[in-house]
Amino acid sequence: MNAELPLAQGWMNAARTPFDAEALFNPRGIAVIGASANLSRIGGQPIRALLDAGYAGHIHPVNPKYTEIAGLRCHRQVADIEGPCDLAIIAIPAALVPESITACGRAGIRFAIVLSGGFREAGEAGKTIEARLLAAAREAGVRVIGPNCQGLISTSSRVFAVFGAISHETRMQPGAISMVFQSGGFGFAIMTLCDALGIRFRHCVSIGNEADITTPELVAALALDTGTRAIFLYLEGVRDGRALIAAAHGALAAGKPVIVWKGGKTEAGNRAAASHTANMTGQYDLYRAAFRQAGMIEARSVDEIADLFTVLSSGRPIAGGNMAALAISGGAGVVFADAAIAHGARLPAFTDQTLEKLRAVLPAFASTANPVDITADIFNDISRFTAALEIVLADPNIDQLAILLASLPGKLALEAANAIATAQEQSAKPIVLAWSARRARATEAYERLETALIPILPSPERVGAAAATLARHADAARFALPNLVRASEHGAARAIHRGRRTLNEIDAKRLLGRFGIPVTNDAIFAAAGDSADCENLSYPVVAKIVSADIPHKSDVGGVITNLPSLEALRRGIGEMMAAVQRNAPAAHIDGVLVSEMVTDGTEAIVGVVNDAVFGPTVALGLGGIFTEILRDITYRVAPFTIEVAHAMIIELRAHKLLTDGARGIAPRDTEALANTLVRVSEMAWRLRDSLVELDINPLFIRPAGKGVIAADCLITLNGEMAPP
Amino acid sequence: MNAELPLAQGWMNAARTPFDAEALFNPRGIAVIGASANLSRIGGQPIRALLDAGYAGHIHPVNPKYTEIAGLRCHRQVADIEGPCDLAIIAIPAALVPESITACGRAGIRFAIVLSGGFREAGEAGKTIEARLLAAAREAGVRVIGPNCQGLISTSSRVFAVFGAISHETRMQPGAISMVFQSGGFGFAIMTLCDALGIRFRHCVSIGNEADITTPELVAALALDTGTRAIFLYLEGVRDGRALIAAAHGALAAGKPVIVWKGGKTEAGNRAAASHTANMTGQYDLYRAAFRQAGMIEARSVDEIADLFTVLSSGRPIAGGNMAALAISGGAGVVFADAAIAHGARLPAFTDQTLEKLRAVLPAFASTANPVDITADIFNDISRFTAALEIVLADPNIDQLAILLASLPGKLALEAANAIATAQEQSAKPIVLAWSARRARATEAYERLETALIPILPSPERVGAAAATLARHADAARFALPNLVRASEHGAARAIHRGRRTLNEIDAKRLLGRFGIPVTNDAIFAAAGDSADCENLSYPVVAKIVSADIPHKSDVGGVITNLPSLEALRRGIGEMMAAVQRNAPAAHIDGVLVSEMVTDGTEAIVGVVNDAVFGPTVALGLGGIFTEILRDITYRVAPFTIEVAHAMIIELRAHKLLTDGARGIAPRDTEALANTLVRVSEMAWRLRDSLVELDINPLFIRPAGKGVIAADCLITLNGEMAPP
Repeated sequence: MNAELPLAQGWMNAARTPFDAEALFNPRGIAVIGASANLSRIGGQPIRALLDAGYAGHIHPVNPKYTEIAGLRCHRQVADIEGPCDLAIIAIPAALVPESITACGRAGIRFAIVLSGGFREAGEAGKTIEARLLAAAREAGVRVIGPNCQGLISTSSRVFAVFGAISHETRMQPGAISMVFQSGGFGFAIMTLCDALGIRFRHCVSIGNEADITTPELVAALALDTGTRAIFLYLEGVRDGRALIAAAHGALAAGKPVIVWKGGKTEAGNRAAASHTANMTGQYDLYRAAFRQAGMIEARSVDEIADLFTVLSSGRPIAGGNMAALAISGGAGVVFADAAIAHGARLPAFTDQTLEKLRAVLPAFASTANPVDITADIFNDISRFTAALEIVLADPNIDQLAILLASLPGKLALEAANAIATAQEQSAKPIVLAWSARRARATEAYERLETALIPILPSPERVGAAAATLARHADAARFALPNLVRASEHGAARAIHRGRRTLNEIDAKRLLGRFGIPVTNDAIFAAAGDSADCENLSYPVVAKIVSADIPHKSDVGGVITNLPSLEALRRGIGEMMAAVQRNAPAAHIDGVLVSEMVTDGTEAIVGVVNDAVFGPTVALGLGGIFTEILRDITYRVAPFTIEVAHAMIIELRAHKLLTDGARGIAPRDTEALANTLVRVSEMAWRLRDSLVELDINPLFIRPAGKGVIAADCLITLNGEMAPP
Repeated sequence: MNAELPLAQGWMNAARTPFDAEALFNPRGIAVIGASANLSRIGGQPIRALLDAGYAGHIHPVNPKYTEIAGLRCHRQVADIEGPCDLAIIAIPAALVPESITACGRAGIRFAIVLSGGFREAGEAGKTIEARLLAAAREAGVRVIGPNCQGLISTSSRVFAVFGAISHETRMQPGAISMVFQSGGFGFAIMTLCDALGIRFRHCVSIGNEADITTPELVAALALDTGTRAIFLYLEGVRDGRALIAAAHGALAAGKPVIVWKGGKTEAGNRAAASHTANMTGQYDLYRAAFRQAGMIEARSVDEIADLFTVLSSGRPIAGGNMAALAISGGAGVVFADAAIAHGARLPAFTDQTLEKLRAVLPAFASTANPVDITADIFNDISRFTAALEIVLADPNIDQLAILLASLPGKLALEAANAIATAQEQSAKPIVLAWSARRARATEAYERLETALIPILPSPERVGAAAATLARHADAARFALPNLVRASEHGAARAIHRGRRTLNEIDAKRLLGRFGIPVTNDAIFAAAGDSADCENLSYPVVAKIVSADIPHKSDVGGVITNLPSLEALRRGIGEMMAAVQRNAPAAHIDGVLVSEMVTDGTEAIVGVVNDAVFGPTVALGLGGIFTEILRDITYRVAPFTIEVAHAMIIELRAHKLLTDGARGIAPRDTEALANTLVRVSEMAWRLRDSLVELDINPLFIRPAGKGVIAADCLITLNGEMAPP
């Protein structure tokens, strides 16, 4: 949990050049500082693990108490190490770590993994030590993982720089999936579970307190790592959300899916803000927006992750979302279809040619539509299965094929496996299997399929979910890449949320206008009878009190709507002034704003939250009930393109209200809405150092072709800034 | 898939007395009709399986071709069997099955499992044979499972009356979970997967075409079976939804959770109906309502099912939803909390006393709040873990405890296991474990925990989800039991959906009034200037054309709202008549209905669908956008109690709009709404033989204390019924 670290530190890290991952993941030598001769202690476990795993470089235990540990020469101090040494594992009391880092730097060691606890997580004294650690690292030119972490495993170079249960798992073989965990215990438990399922990993890092190297930095490094094919993150929070987005984009550009499990979804949002938008926005809302914008796949269970890994392990490119299924049980086909469709895939109809061919080879009681059910007939004649497999795979409407074999055992399973492996060799379309035979009953079949790199999951709903999720991701990735989120060299945001200054409505609308956001036709009502401006308005109008001291005007009687004439306006304003005086006697009144009423608009709220982690982020919801009761709100980190704005609109549960119209209401001008969202996002980005929060409420969305119009606006700026 | 069977048949079955399950699941002897000497053929597999499984009764192969099969005497015909025989397994061509059933009856065999295919699923000829089969069974007094099924396994009596992959799994040991599958291949694959996880089963039945014995009947039998502790159904559809609800209620009353996986969720609804309600209702909506009303747990993956089974296998009563977690990894605690809360559990704060005690035993960097994170400190001193475990378990705010051990291996794991087993012996509160150590690294610890019947799942989110789901179920069960759904001895519904007759608005409102449902104050406008009735109305009023030929009045200009006076009414009606004449020249006009307008009401739609499977079912949604765009609709099978009506209201996503008020709108009269829902449900039930569909649209829900009022109503009745 990194919430307490000062923000500036995260930004600095984000701006550093990528580190030399080769020296970290494939070090020429490893020092173990605080080495213990008792190999079951924290200072001994990494030594045992490195030896067991077959690490080929030199291991250099460092501890003045010993001259030898586990047959290795033990050094009094780091300076005594001879030969190349790129990495130090540090397991000494916290207070001694900073000077140990300094010694590492002097000895030419470029990376340190600090396993020791007792830093930030242990209170004020620990925080001070962590700050000293960071200063020592910067000074010495040493990059640090941790402190308070469980270490790092790099299976390809046999680096098992870890303690705990995972230090015993030294037989794990190399794979192409790399992982970063903000909880070592949980992360390495995921690794253990997945390894037992035959999934193989490359670099796995428990990141600890992130005093120096951060999660986004590691993701960026893994994106560049040629041996990494996919990246998994267990994430509780980052300090610089834009650095995370940028790193994930890098991975995407390199064709590497990033799977993320966000822990702490249910944490309560606790903003204290004037705007509706800020009050309704939880931290997790912003993470989800960021994941979408960066094309990251969100997962929420170990099984889901393991299934994605399994399908990715085939090494085939991710296929499209047009899926077919070939089942030997009707139920399996039904369940597959439910899951695949729920995860965004399609089960298209086969061509007439395919159907005709299927009818020719399958028995009359088989179902030839997609999903195909060849039934238990497979027990009678496997050749029909083989024929159907080839026919379905060849259908031009189909991107990928799921074969659902229930628990088919023995000789039949082997024949099916041979047919599948042969078909896969001859087709570019990926095949995924749902199959739950006990291994002992179908050993040869399993081996045949594993050699052919055909992914096998135990049940049809898991095949449907995993294959569909990856297909959807491929679309999301294509969308995300050209719609890169801009990062700042200074991190996400610098708006200081102290000394707020709320603009009055006149100034707020002027500011909107400057960014090309259409506002209502307004006039100022001058009390001295001289209301020429108001004579030129189209009635009916709405009158609103103007005061920076009154953020919610209607609460104090400061709004009167539907005034049909200048006379009614005059009368209304008199009553309004009396009410405001009664309800907010201390407020400084700047005047009364009179606006033409919009009568053909659907109400929306467009807001900006300037978040400490993600910087300026734009929110969109429809009026009142939709945001307040249904919480139907969508977010994107600013600034963004028109494509992203349209994606936001479509993401609203109520979007059909805008696009299709409803109950005799014509479709709304979503083109203009998208344009305005882009402008608000540009405005939020340009003003990121001064804008604290913004609400356009309501923004009226008029019928198609008639545009949108901001009828009211609340803007709070950093108090130290000059008025815009 | 049972969609094609005539409805009447399902109803008859529902009305039959429960069958003698003992003879089915624990038969004294088993005949195998169509026995094959080749034990790998369908007629041979059950013989091999029964022998391998150690079935203790007599096996009687029947086939005139042989005198002996697998060392058993083979009979020429069923009549030749000597000694008691309760069950026949039939694997002969479809056309021969009916007479074989007759022979079984003569021989005193009471149950037949028909494995053969070639019946309803194979087209028209097969349907005829299936009808003959049923007639033969009724005549002979034989109850039949199948045809076209994979058979039945009863582990307690070693009955493996099955073919296919599952016929090899004869070492499966008895447990307390029974299952019914509407897909044998998929169902037995679930059984295989779960058995590999250590879950044990009792009676598992592939139900096939359900020509005779239906899924609800089996559920009813399993509810009465003392050895069954929980029931799982893989369901694609039933013919009599009320029989299913009644059977599930029976299980609930016996304290047995019913878990259901509904396959075919994404099937498109294709009603062609006049009412909004019917057009918006898919079959799955009604199943979900029924599951809720019967207190059934809906599952959608094998893992979810397996996890529920694992937790249920402890044999402890299901605990409440106040959960605590004790983790050795922060991430595990976070992930557990996310999942538990998402599934409806709570993580309450500990008492001050608990916190004080925890602080005394745990190190400073541990987190003592719920979820507790004792950190990797467990590697230093396990006694602190043990102490914390006892302290947390004793907290009075806590119903159950999850312990999250990551992959803790070896000696530490054994010490932890001992502590957990001891604590569980001394506490009535259930303990559930998330633990992913490889078995080989912690064999003794696993054995210790398994002996103590402590459920172990591999990851914390699965523990959170399963324990919370069961806790929520316990609440749902308490609610469902006193709110039993009424079943009819004649099944769900008999309204014939041919020969429809739509009532005009006057008659429809009269009918509502007769059932105590408040309607608007109305008058008939008499064209001849004599509009005395209209003079007594409170204006403004709305005028609506009355014609049974015009179901959607506003589409033809047949509605004018907001008429402020009698003069305006007269004028408006003139215009309306012209518009209607233009747009619907053929319609027979009964007159013009004039209703007082409701100005302080929130619009709702209350509708009734008279479904072929579930009978009359009531729908509730809020006006226009909420139902049409957001599909925020809730359903309950009629009739129901006021508690159920309140549950419907709360289930709407937008319910806060009614209960809390919003945007200056006062809370609505949900008490009156609930009352009206009950009355509509009573009306729907009373008229179930004539009511085809009903829409009250809008029903205005007025401010609290002011009631509700039906402003318009569409009712379609069976054409052959006399007007109500």
